[in-house]
Amino acid sequence: MVDVGAKAVTRREAAASAFVKLGPGTLRLVRANRIAKGDVLNTARLAGIQAAKRAHELIPLAHPIPLENVAVDLDIEKTGLRVRCRVSAEAKTGAEMEALTGAAVAALTVYDMVKAVERKAEIVRLRLDYKSGGKSGVFRRRA
Amino acid sequence: MVDVGAKAVTRREAAASAFVKLGPGTLRLVRANRIAKGDVLNTARLAGIQAAKRAHELIPLAHPIPLENVAVDLDIEKTGLRVRCRVSAEAKTGAEMEALTGAAVAALTVYDMVKAVERKAEIVRLRLDYKSGGKSGVFRRRA
Amino acid sequence: MVDVGAKAVTRREAAASAFVKLGPGTLRLVRANRIAKGDVLNTARLAGIQAAKRAHELIPLAHPIPLENVAVDLDIEKTGLRVRCRVSAEAKTGAEMEALTGAAVAALTVYDMVKAVERKAEIVRLRLDYKSGGKSGVFRRRA
Amino acid sequence: MVDVGAKAVTRREAAASAFVKLGPGTLRLVRANRIAKGDVLNTARLAGIQAAKRAHELIPLAHPIPLENVAVDLDIEKTGLRVRCRVSAEAKTGAEMEALTGAAVAALTVYDMVKAVERKAEIVRLRLDYKSGGKSGVFRRRA
Amino acid sequence: MVDVGAKAVTRREAAASAFVKLGPGTLRLVRANRIAKGDVLNTARLAGIQAAKRAHELIPLAHPIPLENVAVDLDIEKTGLRVRCRVSAEAKTGAEMEALTGAAVAALTVYDMVKAVERKAEIVRLRLDYKSGGKSGVFRRRA
Amino acid sequence: MVDVGAKAVTRREAAASAFVKLGPGTLRLVRANRIAKGDVLNTARLAGIQAAKRAHELIPLAHPIPLENVAVDLDIEKTGLRVRCRVSAEAKTGAEMEALTGAAVAALTVYDMVKAVERKAEIVRLRLDYKSGGKSGVFRRRA
Repeated sequence: MVDVGAKAVTRREAAASAFVKLGPGTLRLVRANRIAKGDVLNTARLAGIQAAKRAHELIPLAHPIPLENVAVDLDIEKTGLRVRCRVSAEAKTGAEMEALTGAAVAALTVYDMVKAVERKAEIVRLRLDYKSGGKSGVFRRRA
Repeated sequence: MVDVGAKAVTRREAAASAFVKLGPGTLRLVRANRIAKGDVLNTARLAGIQAAKRAHELIPLAHPIPLENVAVDLDIEKTGLRVRCRVSAEAKTGAEMEALTGAAVAALTVYDMVKAVERKAEIVRLRLDYKSGGKSGVFRRRA
Repeated sequence: MVDVGAKAVTRREAAASAFVKLGPGTLRLVRANRIAKGDVLNTARLAGIQAAKRAHELIPLAHPIPLENVAVDLDIEKTGLRVRCRVSAEAKTGAEMEALTGAAVAALTVYDMVKAVERKAEIVRLRLDYKSGGKSGVFRRRA
Repeated sequence: MVDVGAKAVTRREAAASAFVKLGPGTLRLVRANRIAKGDVLNTARLAGIQAAKRAHELIPLAHPIPLENVAVDLDIEKTGLRVRCRVSAEAKTGAEMEALTGAAVAALTVYDMVKAVERKAEIVRLRLDYKSGGKSGVFRRRA
Repeated sequence: MVDVGAKAVTRREAAASAFVKLGPGTLRLVRANRIAKGDVLNTARLAGIQAAKRAHELIPLAHPIPLENVAVDLDIEKTGLRVRCRVSAEAKTGAEMEALTGAAVAALTVYDMVKAVERKAEIVRLRLDYKSGGKSGVFRRRA
Repeated sequence: MVDVGAKAVTRREAAASAFVKLGPGTLRLVRANRIAKGDVLNTARLAGIQAAKRAHELIPLAHPIPLENVAVDLDIEKTGLRVRCRVSAEAKTGAEMEALTGAAVAALTVYDMVKAVERKAEIVRLRLDYKSGGKSGVFRRRA
């Protein structure tokens, strides 16, 4: 673990995203909320929020962080579902892993919901999009 | 949750993989075990194994499964790290989510270990590769 | 802990319910899905399912049980929300605590969602309604 | 999740209670500490304290809060057991859900301990009694 | 993780013990149940039972095991507290780590309860005493 | 739980250690990294770090603490493995239980890794070595 004792408490924000590639048939079912297992978007959103709160349990060297906000949004796009997770905290260390864990578990939950109709669906991207706070300053992924 | 009460207990296997794209400098550090935060491969491997055991806590509608094996392997390839997670169980329901959760958390842990040297690293793939057991039979992703 | 080693594995079912008393204004907002914090029914349902899976962590002397189904339903009634949680498993011990924990956490989640508009809302009942399996046979609460 | 980033850190207190209705025979056994499964009051007390610390894992949209105190008390009354849970913290958001979760799990644990002798016991009330701190000020339930 | 898929399900028992060395003054307070923090023996007992159920979360390569019994006993001896934890299950792999984790956390909880009066107390032994089931047969530590 | 609301936030440090007594054959295997189950030192180190973060879940009356550092070191000595766990935080209460839990779980993990070759291995010591911060000042165990 990195010792963050000497770091300053600053406002930390992080945003991560994932993209679950899905076929048009699956997307139609998702949009119509007709996936047998239940409401894909809402279930994934809640799973992501809950997972972000537990990132420090899953990532061995991550610090516990007092998250002040976790927001997970899912958008239906042409070729799949885009998952975005934003988190914020006042902390001595960044919240990147919280955002990434939230996005990852939301995307995995999408897969769990649709796998009966599209077993071969893939998560084709999972990455940090934004980070602010701390000594290393702002990171913003270029489009 | 899908009621699996009427299903038969069969041997269930699942394999999932993730690919963490990394630059040559980062890969050199990983290969030389010179990442400041510690041993990337071993830490990711253990994080993946532990996460697979907790998949049913993270994925809202997943059933608890008595896993009999979880194996996580990481290979250094030309453009990044390949993560593979295989799981098996005697169960009434498949273990896909366990394999995927193990692969995902191992890949996220890789990112956590290298993010100080390559913040923009991405997980470019996370998917099920294989599944056997149960009524739906064998699924094997074509190369 | 009761030693269940000598008991037979039988099909175990349990159903529990809770009633969250709510004022007509709150019920109107719930029905219209206009509670600011989000979708009350779906969020409570998922929280209940997830909590049922973790009952053995919360109730000190409860055994871990391989749940095969957890179903949580919420109905809007005249004076509040009725929460029902049904669970089933093949196990050596009953699943009453799983059903009750699921109903309790779903009801608490309802409160969390509506407390900004009705702080004084109460859960006026939380109880086992049904249980089958095992030596003690069927329990069915009379209406 | 409600973004609490802009809120002030203030002292937060919350108290919740539950009432487990029990027959005179069961109450006699509890009072005499002769319930076969063990010490009802102490077991329930500890279960409640531990659950309050994990409220943010159970309630999907609850924030993690650095609890400074959790106290659970159980009183044997004429018609059952009264459970009270008080919590406090310095935090940006209230600790109502922590108090309620502690009271709920303590009450469920009472049920788990006595269900062999009184399966039909009910929790007839679970509610917030007091809350202070934050912009919304003091809430105190009238008797 | 060791793949236990090919092993037979057999009855598994394990017993572990720990010894917390305590001064006579502390032991007097424990015996009189006058430790300020609460009932040492009961609190440690419950903590041990609960920890045994979560051994597979703590020990990275341990399998989840459907525990059928966990018993933790504490005895006040001349120079300290003896903690014993016995567990049993029908499983493909042994339950040694469950017994040891239960004994360890019960002993740590004893320390937590008495540390205000005897900060330098030590756990001077933590070990497996007995194990049966599986191919390796019975292990019994000689006195 | 001790109410720590009135205490001051100060820098808290704690160090604990455990000693796993091992035979020369086992130590040789550990040193050569030839234990079949995997890398003993690294696995134990990670298990200890992760357990320290969850001490408040395991020890019933422990407070959640925002750990800023957890370091676990293992040294191969003549008669066994020495485990050291140091933790630090800015908190209202001490982090002794976090350090002890980290050392305990690291030591238990060592046992889990070597038990196939030395079932009778024992943890012969688990204790607090150092503590600073708070009203009670510095504690340092004499050699």
